[in-house]
Amino acid sequence: MSLNSFGHVFRVTTWGESHGPALGAVVDGCPPGVALDEGWIQPFMDRRRPGSSKHTTQRQEADRVRILSGVFEGQTTGTPIMLIIENTDQRSRDYGDIARAFRPGHADIAYHQKYGLRDYRGGGRSSARETAARVAAGAVAQAVLRDLVPGLTVLGYMVQMGALHLNRDAFDADAIRDNPFFLPDPSAVAEWEAYLSAIRKAQNSVGAAVEVLIRGCPPGLGAPVYGKLDTDLAAAMMSINAVKGVEIGEGMAAAALTGVENADEIRMGPDGQPEYLSNHAGGILGGISTGQDITVRFAVKPTSSILTPRRTIDAAGQEIELITKGRHDPCVGIRAVPVAEAMAACVVLDHLLLDRAQTGGVRGRIGG
Amino acid sequence: MSLNSFGHVFRVTTWGESHGPALGAVVDGCPPGVALDEGWIQPFMDRRRPGSSKHTTQRQEADRVRILSGVFEGQTTGTPIMLIIENTDQRSRDYGDIARAFRPGHADIAYHQKYGLRDYRGGGRSSARETAARVAAGAVAQAVLRDLVPGLTVLGYMVQMGALHLNRDAFDADAIRDNPFFLPDPSAVAEWEAYLSAIRKAQNSVGAAVEVLIRGCPPGLGAPVYGKLDTDLAAAMMSINAVKGVEIGEGMAAAALTGVENADEIRMGPDGQPEYLSNHAGGILGGISTGQDITVRFAVKPTSSILTPRRTIDAAGQEIELITKGRHDPCVGIRAVPVAEAMAACVVLDHLLLDRAQTGGVRGRIGG
Amino acid sequence: MSLNSFGHVFRVTTWGESHGPALGAVVDGCPPGVALDEGWIQPFMDRRRPGSSKHTTQRQEADRVRILSGVFEGQTTGTPIMLIIENTDQRSRDYGDIARAFRPGHADIAYHQKYGLRDYRGGGRSSARETAARVAAGAVAQAVLRDLVPGLTVLGYMVQMGALHLNRDAFDADAIRDNPFFLPDPSAVAEWEAYLSAIRKAQNSVGAAVEVLIRGCPPGLGAPVYGKLDTDLAAAMMSINAVKGVEIGEGMAAAALTGVENADEIRMGPDGQPEYLSNHAGGILGGISTGQDITVRFAVKPTSSILTPRRTIDAAGQEIELITKGRHDPCVGIRAVPVAEAMAACVVLDHLLLDRAQTGGVRGRIGG
Amino acid sequence: MSLNSFGHVFRVTTWGESHGPALGAVVDGCPPGVALDEGWIQPFMDRRRPGSSKHTTQRQEADRVRILSGVFEGQTTGTPIMLIIENTDQRSRDYGDIARAFRPGHADIAYHQKYGLRDYRGGGRSSARETAARVAAGAVAQAVLRDLVPGLTVLGYMVQMGALHLNRDAFDADAIRDNPFFLPDPSAVAEWEAYLSAIRKAQNSVGAAVEVLIRGCPPGLGAPVYGKLDTDLAAAMMSINAVKGVEIGEGMAAAALTGVENADEIRMGPDGQPEYLSNHAGGILGGISTGQDITVRFAVKPTSSILTPRRTIDAAGQEIELITKGRHDPCVGIRAVPVAEAMAACVVLDHLLLDRAQTGGVRGRIGG
Repeated sequence: MSLNSFGHVFRVTTWGESHGPALGAVVDGCPPGVALDEGWIQPFMDRRRPGSSKHTTQRQEADRVRILSGVFEGQTTGTPIMLIIENTDQRSRDYGDIARAFRPGHADIAYHQKYGLRDYRGGGRSSARETAARVAAGAVAQAVLRDLVPGLTVLGYMVQMGALHLNRDAFDADAIRDNPFFLPDPSAVAEWEAYLSAIRKAQNSVGAAVEVLIRGCPPGLGAPVYGKLDTDLAAAMMSINAVKGVEIGEGMAAAALTGVENADEIRMGPDGQPEYLSNHAGGILGGISTGQDITVRFAVKPTSSILTPRRTIDAAGQEIELITKGRHDPCVGIRAVPVAEAMAACVVLDHLLLDRAQTGGVRGRIGG
Repeated sequence: MSLNSFGHVFRVTTWGESHGPALGAVVDGCPPGVALDEGWIQPFMDRRRPGSSKHTTQRQEADRVRILSGVFEGQTTGTPIMLIIENTDQRSRDYGDIARAFRPGHADIAYHQKYGLRDYRGGGRSSARETAARVAAGAVAQAVLRDLVPGLTVLGYMVQMGALHLNRDAFDADAIRDNPFFLPDPSAVAEWEAYLSAIRKAQNSVGAAVEVLIRGCPPGLGAPVYGKLDTDLAAAMMSINAVKGVEIGEGMAAAALTGVENADEIRMGPDGQPEYLSNHAGGILGGISTGQDITVRFAVKPTSSILTPRRTIDAAGQEIELITKGRHDPCVGIRAVPVAEAMAACVVLDHLLLDRAQTGGVRGRIGG
Repeated sequence: MSLNSFGHVFRVTTWGESHGPALGAVVDGCPPGVALDEGWIQPFMDRRRPGSSKHTTQRQEADRVRILSGVFEGQTTGTPIMLIIENTDQRSRDYGDIARAFRPGHADIAYHQKYGLRDYRGGGRSSARETAARVAAGAVAQAVLRDLVPGLTVLGYMVQMGALHLNRDAFDADAIRDNPFFLPDPSAVAEWEAYLSAIRKAQNSVGAAVEVLIRGCPPGLGAPVYGKLDTDLAAAMMSINAVKGVEIGEGMAAAALTGVENADEIRMGPDGQPEYLSNHAGGILGGISTGQDITVRFAVKPTSSILTPRRTIDAAGQEIELITKGRHDPCVGIRAVPVAEAMAACVVLDHLLLDRAQTGGVRGRIGG
Repeated sequence: MSLNSFGHVFRVTTWGESHGPALGAVVDGCPPGVALDEGWIQPFMDRRRPGSSKHTTQRQEADRVRILSGVFEGQTTGTPIMLIIENTDQRSRDYGDIARAFRPGHADIAYHQKYGLRDYRGGGRSSARETAARVAAGAVAQAVLRDLVPGLTVLGYMVQMGALHLNRDAFDADAIRDNPFFLPDPSAVAEWEAYLSAIRKAQNSVGAAVEVLIRGCPPGLGAPVYGKLDTDLAAAMMSINAVKGVEIGEGMAAAALTGVENADEIRMGPDGQPEYLSNHAGGILGGISTGQDITVRFAVKPTSSILTPRRTIDAAGQEIELITKGRHDPCVGIRAVPVAEAMAACVVLDHLLLDRAQTGGVRGRIGG
């Protein structure tokens, strides 16, 4: 029941504030014997880190991860893995004038009311900086999945930014790594750049929607009724800062469908495995994976740290106007892409381990 | 780490299959000294039960709840409360011909692959019958909330059914209890009736969207980072059968907003409490309640138990066509309304208790 | 974090009071495909139940278990298993005059102080009646172990009762089932009978010590640092009513040993497996099983429901004298034997599943 | 279900190996607003650390704790507290020749069998070095208890070392801090010194028994049935390296008592509170504290790292003889004293928070 942990078997606990000396994650329950080193993890961090593109926050962090435990001679030992990331570019003076003020749209007032005090620098624990720790943990999960389920891939990308929507007919997975938007449509990148630059210049910010595609997930993962795979995926995405909605497969659009439209019929495939004729279910039935592609999608609200004045109050009950200075993101949704991949990897691995706990990983046979 | 339990302090474990002799819930961690009896719980069950309107499944269940423990002389004792509901109207013969077949869109094939066997009658554990147990547990949560937070209300209603959408300008909470759709717009009921009758006659089914409005939630509930209030609400709704998407506040629409549109400015209210000038956040900031109205919305996919033939396979790997006979729901989303209220009540109470564990319930002061 | 649940993967939740209509257990996380029916469970219940010998309480309960879920066509489905036991012989009138009094040595006053109220009849939730539910759950665990680890046995027996100690040189496992003391020394039974009869006639009671021997436990079970096998076994025994001490292997006697005496040297056995030259460790090193015999031992304090007058107070603060009428046990330790076996079985199975979650059950090789 | 975490609300996760760069603890669920800094914690560490007396291991560690998160401007924020301790005096070369050998009596072989590999340096994760992290966490718990329950004290001391037993008639709490044995009898210190010196010179080691006395614990703490206060205290002590038995109150001696001897009668005290005429229960009834003194006692087996040759095997299955060189403890029980205090503080605080979750901390009234 840790408030700062997630997972059932592969259990991650994160710690650290935006302007503290460091932050990190303890990964517990990791299978032993998996090759792991800092060189494996660092590229995952680099995709996420602030300052890596002009479109994300201008805070420059190296986000260098060190492994302090749980790995010996290049392999996981099965003991807890401590991943630590030092904060090097926290500019406390940027926040000095809002020590007692509650930035509208941020967690400041809620933290104050709940805890009675808060580390106000950079949002303290409520900052998206915490997600760096998740990305490190997700890299560990990816190492294990690499060994346990070689065909499984987790791919995140943006599908919407404000008024702009991904053209799914132009979907090109290879393009994702080549542009700062994680956008799988190279032809649209220029348009997205222009759009976001205009937002930034107007001292505004914009929301986004991110999708994660999980391919090659074995069937049978998920623990009904309250540990369903889609429940845990939804919770994982909803826990990311600024997320307001989560969808699996058809998502909210399912409300408009009829049963005839929605049913995924089944035949036997050439390999003697079940073959689905469609995938409205999004790869999950009754909370359990079917082996089909799993799509998870979520919406990120626009940053509240905009540079136009806002009316608010402070802890003394004074009504004030506030401009949140400092380095800010016009679209926090972009950086959520690697975070979402990390969360998805952790959840899928967790369920792989949970499934083999209860069933030994043996699958029910279909056919001869 | 129970797969069939949810909650951190107020912890509910459900058990029981669709066609077993009974089903129920064990409620653990309930505060003592709360007045509770079967008469309090039964009305919650009656709102949900099958056969209570011609638009839900024709299975006739009394859904009579008995309390077997945890209550003494009309009060909760703080010990686990066992709530049991007997199944009386399971017609096993309706399912006899699909013992080995996997109904498309249902969990059948997934359960078979995960567990190697399944109680196929009525969907076994994967059946929405399980939600009856949740409603009983939710009634217990409501009793505690009635005592601990007298002003708090939890109200569920439908906002969409297939092509029909609630007209929010005509919102009338009092109408919800007076029509079989839990629809807060009395003028639209006839239209919804006609629409659904047509669906049923066509042997089809339709999806729906349900919203839950939580009013009077105290500020400060929610346990960042992974026990956020919105995370737990989302997980609770996503765990309901056939749910494919969940939204908090603006939901997926937040992806299209800009920061200027989205910020909720704050002033001091006449009662010396913070007063928000809007509520795009949906009552939750940084995963913690602010005291504003909380709205949770989710989409339910259409029933897959439709009466038109579907192509599928069975456990022997045979390709077959299947008509799922029996009594079926043209819109399972309707019955999800009281289930969602129950889940919301459980989550909010759980967080009230969790909060008072860590902070003693003392709130940070704002102003004098 | 359920207060009324134990176990990590194989998770048991019990409910029910001594004088309620019923009590029982929900078993979650049970592997599927295990043959199980009421006929398998009932003999475990019969060994424990009150009235089964003149030396245990005179309350006559059939302790008939019914399985309400989680089993289909004679096999576990992997869904939660509800085991219910009706109370048939609760004589409420025996307790009527102590409704408000706190019986010395019992949990009455502590429950009153914690919860503000209590079901006083027969001790309510604090009664050892609750252990009937554990025995039922333990029977389920035994069924799974029967399939997963055929050579594993769990054997409980008494080693002390008041002034009498088991003569270990006369240890005869076959005798355990043939006498009402679960005593593995048939030659001592008459002495124990006479001793206990004298205690009963004197309206007194006596403490006991019970030992559980686990043979054939595979090496590698246990989850350091806080889920160690010995930690969980100790917690399991300590949770049994009236237990005041728990020992593994040498137990408290280890404090008097020196290192030279205590070391268990290792050689290679004829089967290519490690062979230990002694077993001071009690089958567990660093919290992980070694494959050697595991011995757990615990002490049960004497019953406080004796028939001589005791000074106490009641909830009104009145000083009174109390004789606890009703049917009482001169030695509650006897009935703890099958309860301890049940707890040991649950813990070992839980760790088997937990181990295969993290490691897939693959063991580190020693030798070629 | 973290394997490396303990606690329900106040939840501690430790990480780190004996010869890794560092080790530490993440403390989650800590109440906010508690004054805390490194200066508060360090004295707790100093009592435990190796090299602090000639009777404990000769490894010289400063055990300097740094707080990396969860504290702001000298107060806890309610967010996770990261405590890190660098290892500075790990002499890897001392262990080089036993990389593949399994030291008898140590966890080496068990870790190898479970995980397939292990960090063999200094015992890796199985080393008692891990307890340094517990002491740091315990110091945090003590800070909270200092604020929440000012009269509560947790006091640990040795009661046995090999053949020597504490003379309880000479009990002098003030003496504990003045001698290297944490012995509450100053007149016996010279005898204990001579005894242990002889053990060390003989290249041997010896077991010990430690007791923790908790005074001023409020009544009502403990969560029946499986979260009992004594269950959690027992588990906490049993999880400490080399512990083989745990006792509460009378402990194993309860097996020899009769009911007449054992009952704690109750009267009303002059302050209108219940007054117990004895304390055989050890301050806990039915798993709930009564307000009386709580005594927990445990036995620590002798160190297996003795300097006489032992027969064992290595991972290649070779039979070898082994002398474990390096710096070793003739009596590891001594250092367990501050560790036990730390664990007791964590458990008591955890239960204080858990109790106020379910009951709001309101106690049942006795009398007017």
